[in-house]
Amino acid sequence: MTFKTTVAAVAAAACTLLALPASAQFAKAEEAIKYRQGSLFVIGQHFGRIGAMVNGKLPFDAKAAQDNADIVAAMAALPWAGFGPGTDKGAPHKAKPAVWSEQAKFNEHAQTFQTEAGKLAAAARTGKLDQIKAAFGPAAQSCKSCHDAFRNR
Amino acid sequence: MTFKTTVAAVAAAACTLLALPASAQFAKAEEAIKYRQGSLFVIGQHFGRIGAMVNGKLPFDAKAAQDNADIVAAMAALPWAGFGPGTDKGAPHKAKPAVWSEQAKFNEHAQTFQTEAGKLAAAARTGKLDQIKAAFGPAAQSCKSCHDAFRNR
Repeated sequence: MTFKTTVAAVAAAACTLLALPASAQFAKAEEAIKYRQGSLFVIGQHFGRIGAMVNGKLPFDAKAAQDNADIVAAMAALPWAGFGPGTDKGAPHKAKPAVWSEQAKFNEHAQTFQTEAGKLAAAARTGKLDQIKAAFGPAAQSCKSCHDAFRNR
Repeated sequence: MTFKTTVAAVAAAACTLLALPASAQFAKAEEAIKYRQGSLFVIGQHFGRIGAMVNGKLPFDAKAAQDNADIVAAMAALPWAGFGPGTDKGAPHKAKPAVWSEQAKFNEHAQTFQTEAGKLAAAARTGKLDQIKAAFGPAAQSCKSCHDAFRNR
């Protein structure tokens, strides 16, 4: 099984899960909220380490960039299952009601991020900072545009 | 890159990270704590879904078992970087002081879990429930023994 296949398999699994009611995946809404917050936080940490290299705040380390990008790509499919029906309440969170009222748009953002994360991991495998920079921009933009539309500050 | 290689690469990356001071990976201790809690929670959710099939609480679904086991295996290397020096304070958590005072023993537990998670993913790829059951037991035991020794209730 290639890495790409693994990412695709995890993505497919997450899509399957998305189609189920939250109750089928999480014992209660609180768990779904902790799950999405936890997975997004872990993704954000690894994504941020690539960003620090892209922005010159950390020296470029091709292996570290690839490791971090692989983790981001492998996890990019996960958080969305935690936004199922009925998970707008149950624990403190920053998700706007639009996540549930504009679900198609939200899912589109989630899909864009997964696509960009895959491209970033592919770029990181070249070991070239300029390729990573080129892929990092659109990936970071996909985070920002979703946060702007669907996350309270 | 095979899935096994991916898991090994992520594990190697996490080991590299473990060798660095927490400040090199996380902006502050609070982030390290959120990181380890988030990654362990996500792992626990996916692990629990396999457990529900193993214990007959959910009907056996070979594909779902494999998807969940792949996620557990891919993430099994991550949480440990969040237990670096100076991360015993900074946010509420349940880690016992022994995590830092008996670091070699803690690392051994972390390593055992990664090994068992890899075996569980391999068992899940056979698509056979009896193989999954056989691998699930030791994996679950590795969670429990670490929690007993290093996590407050």
